[in-house]
Order: sequence, then structure tokens, then C-alpha cells
Amino acid sequence: MKARVTVTLKNGVLDPQGKAIEGALKSLGIDGVDSVRQGKVFDIELAGADKAAAEAALKAACEKLLANTVIENYRVEIGA
Amino acid sequence: MKARVTVTLKNGVLDPQGKAIEGALKSLGIDGVDSVRQGKVFDIELAGADKAAAEAALKAACEKLLANTVIENYRVEIGA
Repeated sequence: MKARVTVTLKNGVLDPQGKAIEGALKSLGIDGVDSVRQGKVFDIELAGADKAAAEAALKAACEKLLANTVIENYRVEIGA
Repeated sequence: MKARVTVTLKNGVLDPQGKAIEGALKSLGIDGVDSVRQGKVFDIELAGADKAAAEAALKAACEKLLANTVIENYRVEIGA
């Protein structure tokens, strides 16, 4: 079973990396970019076919390792 | 207009960061994880309302800056 976990910064948390990308895009001549915020994505391959168990395991993984829940939000999507 | 760009490693490209996360999840007692691959996500706020123009600009951004197209794939999703 495939799953995707997306970890993004919470609103209000400064993102200097995103700001740098925004500046770089402008200097490359790509117009119309108002803001950029960078996050992380984890494509995870899971054993077993129990979606509920997989979701619980991935939420535990996010809380323990993948996301810093003080400053980041996470979203778990279970695929086929 | 909001857009999300997802950049992931191509199949066959080694991902030591993903391997390290996989090992860490196992040592934290999270079972059933077969593989992890890490990618990047960019949440971009764009000026204007022309979806086609936005998509073209973001594809240019990916080719020039956001993705290394030798080893990475990218996907552009235009939101509301």
C-alpha cells in the first residue's frame, strides 16, 4: 500500500528558505509569484492492506519523527 | 491563486535520506514500513487569475530552479 505524508510549516512560522526561493524566482524573471513556502513530502510504501492501521501508524510516525508539531502541520493520504 | 509544486526523486535514483528515515521509523517501533522516499513540496501564491499562464510560469520555475530534472520529477497543481 502506498501513502503520502505532506509536512508543511504552520501559518505564521517564518520560512527563510521559501523567501530565498521567491527571490531566486524573481531574479530568474518568473513573474507573478507572491509567496513561496517550502515543505516536505514522504512517499511511503507500507506492508499490509489495513488502511486504518496504516493511517494510525503514519500518524504516530509524524508525531514522533516526520513533523515537528510545534511549527509544522502534517497530512496523511493513503493511496492504493 | 494558490498552486502546489511537488518534486520527487525519479525511480531508480538512490535516496539515502529516505533510507535513513526508514531505519529511524523501524527503530522507533513503527512497523510495516517497506520503503520511504523523501521529496519537496512548494506552496506558491501567484498573482493574477490566468491558470494557463500560471501553469506555464510554474513549469518554467521547475525547469530552471525548483527541480533537478536529471534526477527529479515535478508535478504542478493549480488550486483556487
